[in-house]
Amino acid sequence: MSDAAPSGPLSGLRILELGHFVAAPFCTRLLADLGADVIKIEPPGGDPVRQWGRQVEGAGAPWWSMHARNKRCITVDLKRERAVGLVLDLVRTCDAVVENFRPGQLARMGLSRAALEAARPGIVVAHISGYGQDGAYRDRAAFGVIGEAIGGLRHLTNHPPGETDLPPVRVGVSIGDSIAGLYAAFGVVAALLARDRPGGDGRGRTLDVALSESVLSMMEGMLPEYGVFGTVRQPTGSRIATAAPSSAYPTRDGGWILIGGNSDPIFERLTSLMGRPDLFADPRFTGNANRVRNVEALDGEIGDWTRRHDARDLDRMLAAADVPATVTYTAAEIAADPQFRARGMVREVEDPAFGRVLQAGIVPHVPDDPGTVRWPGPRLGQHTDAILRDDLGLDEAAIRSLRDEGVVG
Amino acid sequence: MSDAAPSGPLSGLRILELGHFVAAPFCTRLLADLGADVIKIEPPGGDPVRQWGRQVEGAGAPWWSMHARNKRCITVDLKRERAVGLVLDLVRTCDAVVENFRPGQLARMGLSRAALEAARPGIVVAHISGYGQDGAYRDRAAFGVIGEAIGGLRHLTNHPPGETDLPPVRVGVSIGDSIAGLYAAFGVVAALLARDRPGGDGRGRTLDVALSESVLSMMEGMLPEYGVFGTVRQPTGSRIATAAPSSAYPTRDGGWILIGGNSDPIFERLTSLMGRPDLFADPRFTGNANRVRNVEALDGEIGDWTRRHDARDLDRMLAAADVPATVTYTAAEIAADPQFRARGMVREVEDPAFGRVLQAGIVPHVPDDPGTVRWPGPRLGQHTDAILRDDLGLDEAAIRSLRDEGVVG
Repeated sequence: MSDAAPSGPLSGLRILELGHFVAAPFCTRLLADLGADVIKIEPPGGDPVRQWGRQVEGAGAPWWSMHARNKRCITVDLKRERAVGLVLDLVRTCDAVVENFRPGQLARMGLSRAALEAARPGIVVAHISGYGQDGAYRDRAAFGVIGEAIGGLRHLTNHPPGETDLPPVRVGVSIGDSIAGLYAAFGVVAALLARDRPGGDGRGRTLDVALSESVLSMMEGMLPEYGVFGTVRQPTGSRIATAAPSSAYPTRDGGWILIGGNSDPIFERLTSLMGRPDLFADPRFTGNANRVRNVEALDGEIGDWTRRHDARDLDRMLAAADVPATVTYTAAEIAADPQFRARGMVREVEDPAFGRVLQAGIVPHVPDDPGTVRWPGPRLGQHTDAILRDDLGLDEAAIRSLRDEGVVG
Repeated sequence: MSDAAPSGPLSGLRILELGHFVAAPFCTRLLADLGADVIKIEPPGGDPVRQWGRQVEGAGAPWWSMHARNKRCITVDLKRERAVGLVLDLVRTCDAVVENFRPGQLARMGLSRAALEAARPGIVVAHISGYGQDGAYRDRAAFGVIGEAIGGLRHLTNHPPGETDLPPVRVGVSIGDSIAGLYAAFGVVAALLARDRPGGDGRGRTLDVALSESVLSMMEGMLPEYGVFGTVRQPTGSRIATAAPSSAYPTRDGGWILIGGNSDPIFERLTSLMGRPDLFADPRFTGNANRVRNVEALDGEIGDWTRRHDARDLDRMLAAADVPATVTYTAAEIAADPQFRARGMVREVEDPAFGRVLQAGIVPHVPDDPGTVRWPGPRLGQHTDAILRDDLGLDEAAIRSLRDEGVVG
C-alpha cells in the first residue's frame, strides 16, 4: 500500500460505500480513481466479488485488486445493534453515500434518507438498483442480464431474424451494472456541485439510478423511431443497418478482422488494397446507399479476400492503406497494445496478494490532474482499526469492545 | 418549445458544444437533461445525426428530437474568418467546452486550450476521441465499431469458440460512443466541482476521453486475470461462465425468454414450476458449481420446457413463481412497460416537427430535483439570433452583417 497523497479533481471528497457486487463498487472505484477518499463498509464475509472468477489460493480473485483499488475497507456487521450508530458516525464525515442494497433495505436498517440527513445535513445519497426505488418492479431481484434485456440491449445483440437458431448473446461483462455505476458517479458529482458551488443551495439530493433505465438511455433513436413510424429496431448481427461495408470478416487463421469502409474514399482505398478496383466502379456498390442495399454481395467479396490472409497481416495491410480496421482485441492484445501502455490505460500495480497485477487505467483521463492507483484492493478489514482510530477518534479499548461484540471485524 | 425554467442540479451552468455524431452530443444531452444551458454550434449543413436513420420528409430523423433536446442550436461556419472570434465570445460566457473533432483540429482552428483559457480563465475542456489526444493512434479515424473492438468488447459479444461460423455481433447501438460521452459528462462535472467548491483551486482542467479506453474500463477482471493466470477471457454466448442456469431460452412463438435461475432457492422454484422437481434433486444439478459443469444438459431440459410455451406466458408464469425472468424487450415492450411509464423513463414529448415523440427519460433520476425535457431537438439555426442578441448583446445590424458574410446561419 502506497501512502501517496490523493490527487485528481475529487481529492478532498469523502464517500461512504454500502455496496456489493458490481454497480455501487464500480461507481466508487471511479470516484476513488479521481481522488475521492472512499470508505467501503463490508460484511464479515466480505464482498462476494472477492471470490468471483478464478482465484489465487488464500488471496481470492484478481479482479478485486482493481475493483476495490484506492478504497479503505472496514468490516462492519450491520446486523449488530451498535453497527448503525457506527455507520452514522462515519456518515457525519462524508459528502455522499453510495449503496446498492435492495430498495428499502437501507431504511429498514435504520439508515433512511432522514437518518442520514440528520447525521450529515446536505448528504448526497445514491441508490442503485435494478428497476428503481419505486414502482411496481422495485422489489424484483436486480439480475443484470434481466435488466439489460428490459432496457432493450439483449434484443439487439443478435444476428438478424431468421439467420440463426442460436440465442442473442450476452455482452460478456456486466455492462448494465457498470453503466448504472457510471451514471451514479455522474449524479453524485452533479449533486455535490449543486450543493457546494458559489450560489449553490447547500442541500443534499437523492439519486435513484436503475440498471434497466441506464441501459435504455443509450438506445439512441429506438424509441423516437418506434413512436413516429411504428418500426421496431431489429438486430443487425455484425453489421450496421445504415452503413456498408462495416462488419467483422473471417480470416485465414480463424479470427476476425473488423473493417469500417463505409465512406467513399475509404471504400476506394479498401478495394484498391484488395486488388479489386472493379468493385469500386461497380454500380451495385456506388455510394453508401447502394452498398447497404447490396451488402450481402459486397460482404461476400470482402470475406473472400480476408479469408486468404491471417488476421495480423490484414491488420497491418489495412492500417498501411488507411482503412479503419482492427483485429478483435482479447486480453492479450489489450495487454500488449502500445497506445494503452503509453497512456497508462494498461498499467501494472504492485499487489501484496497477487504480485504485479495488470489493471485498466483511470477514465476520464485528466492530463493536468490525473488520479493515481494509490493502492490495490485491500484485504478484508484492512483499514478497520485505522478508520475507527483516525476518523472516529476511538481509543484502543473502544475498538476492542466493538470487535469483541462482533460489530467490527 | 417550452419556456419552462431549467431545473435539475446542473441548472445555472453553461456548456458550449462543438460536437457532432454521437459522443459529444450525448455528453451534452446528459448535462442539459440535468439543467445545464447547452449551446450547440452546428455547421451550415447541420449535425449529420439530423439525417441518421429513417426520416420524416422535411423534418429529418426522429432521433434528433431526443439527441438534441434541451439544447440551443446556433449555426456557425467555422471556416469563416470571424467565426473563431464569435466562438470565443461565447466561450467567455461558458463553464465548459465539449468537443469531438479529430485530435488537434480545435487547436488548428484557433481554439487551443490556451485560446479558450484566455477567453475564459478556468474553462473546463472535454475532448472526446477514438483513442485519445496523444500517442501513436491519435490520428486514427474514430469509428465506434473499431474502438469497441480495441476496448475488448467485440471479442466477447459472440458464441463460444467453435459453436458457430457467424461473426461476433455488434451491440446494435453505438454503445462505445455513449459510454465515452457519459464518462466525459462525469469528468466535466468533476472538474467543475474541483474548480468551484469551497477550497477549490479555481482552475480549469482538460479531459481527454477515448472511446476505446472508456470501453476497456468496463471489462471487469479481464486484465487482472490475464496478468495473474495468463487466461484470456472468452465469449460465453448467451450464458454466464460462472452461474447456471442463466441464459436466453427459445419459446414456442419463436422468441426468447431470459431466465436467471442460478441460486439454489430460485432453481428450486424454477424446477417446481417446470413440473420437474427431479431436476432439483439430480446430483448433476446440486449447487451452482455442478450446474455450471453440466450446463449443456441443464439448459437442454429448460429449453425443452420453454419451447412448449409462448414467451408472454412464460414471462407471466415465471414472475408468479418469483423466478427472475423476462422476454427480450424490443421498442414495443419498452414503450408499453408500466414501470418505465410510471417513472417517466418513457415519455411523450411534443415536437413541432414530428408531433408526439416517444423519448427515454432522464438518467440519473433525481427525485427531489428532476431535470425536465424543456424542448425537443431544435431546427437548424433555431437559436442563432437569440444567442447573438441575448447572450452576446449584438444588435440587428451586427447580426445581419454576420449572416451576410456567411459566418452564421
